[in-house]
Amino acid sequence: MGRWEPDAAGRFRAAAIELFAEIGYEQTTVAAIAARAGLTARTFFRYFTDKREVLFDGSGRLQQMMVDALAMAPVEHSAMDAVAAALQKAGELFDDARRPFARVRSVVIAANPDLLEREVAKMAALSGSLALSLRARGVREPDASLAAGAGIAVFRVSFAQWVSESERRSYSEIVNESLARLKEITNQ
Amino acid sequence: MGRWEPDAAGRFRAAAIELFAEIGYEQTTVAAIAARAGLTARTFFRYFTDKREVLFDGSGRLQQMMVDALAMAPVEHSAMDAVAAALQKAGELFDDARRPFARVRSVVIAANPDLLEREVAKMAALSGSLALSLRARGVREPDASLAAGAGIAVFRVSFAQWVSESERRSYSEIVNESLARLKEITNQ
Repeated sequence: MGRWEPDAAGRFRAAAIELFAEIGYEQTTVAAIAARAGLTARTFFRYFTDKREVLFDGSGRLQQMMVDALAMAPVEHSAMDAVAAALQKAGELFDDARRPFARVRSVVIAANPDLLEREVAKMAALSGSLALSLRARGVREPDASLAAGAGIAVFRVSFAQWVSESERRSYSEIVNESLARLKEITNQ
Repeated sequence: MGRWEPDAAGRFRAAAIELFAEIGYEQTTVAAIAARAGLTARTFFRYFTDKREVLFDGSGRLQQMMVDALAMAPVEHSAMDAVAAALQKAGELFDDARRPFARVRSVVIAANPDLLEREVAKMAALSGSLALSLRARGVREPDASLAAGAGIAVFRVSFAQWVSESERRSYSEIVNESLARLKEITNQ
């Protein structure tokens, strides 16, 4: 007990999402997650504060990846091109192996107002970080906040589409299409 | 006590915002708001559930006004033009007489994570309502959600600018400029 377990975090994550899908988020206990993962609750708490954190522990990494990609985009990139680079970078987290987890996660969050509020707050924080990073590139306001806000709109729409039931296209393809649609509708 | 008072809601709102500015949101009690308004706490609770509602009771009306304006925009309007009509309609709530209240409200919300989370959730709900109203006009996805999301980005940026310390331009002027900037940056 408490000893190092190979990919314990990944096993807890997989076990939690299975249980959320099978018996519901509210009904799932940390004890049940640990039992399903073949680990102990004590080990669970070395990786996560609570079951909610299983759903949100990727968001810090997502934000860091996007901010870094934005900062490293070629200096001649426009604000929206830099945001597009950040959105594409996020695709490294959203490959096909991850899609089943992301689908269940989305269903669980949509059904729980507290989780939805947290998800929305994370998106607002992400938008703020992207705007800050754009200003560091020399983009002025209101352009920085507008590009960040529009980018988050593209991200939310694309992500929701990527996890939708019958969708087969990659996250990256969907982001490109959403960016093209945004350009089109702002010109009509 | 409990009898009808002319513009009691307005008096409570003015009293609350004065106290929030003077002694802080956390420190302000309903009793103090009522005393400042020259009314009773009992009367306060006929208009508001709690002090927090003083800050958010306008959001339902804002959403209804924007959704109605969107629905009534000329049928030949593009999705973004219909969203622009909704953003401009909201300006009826944001005239210069309202700016001091809106300024204090923004400062109070920015300083309180719970209030900020609620504000962000309201914006997400507003975005969802606008997307729904666009779909009712025949706008397809992802365009409806992208136009709504981009519109909310414009709204947040414009509103923040409108309440900023030294800003003198009207809400309407700022919205028009933000919409023009959005168009510009999505084409670069």
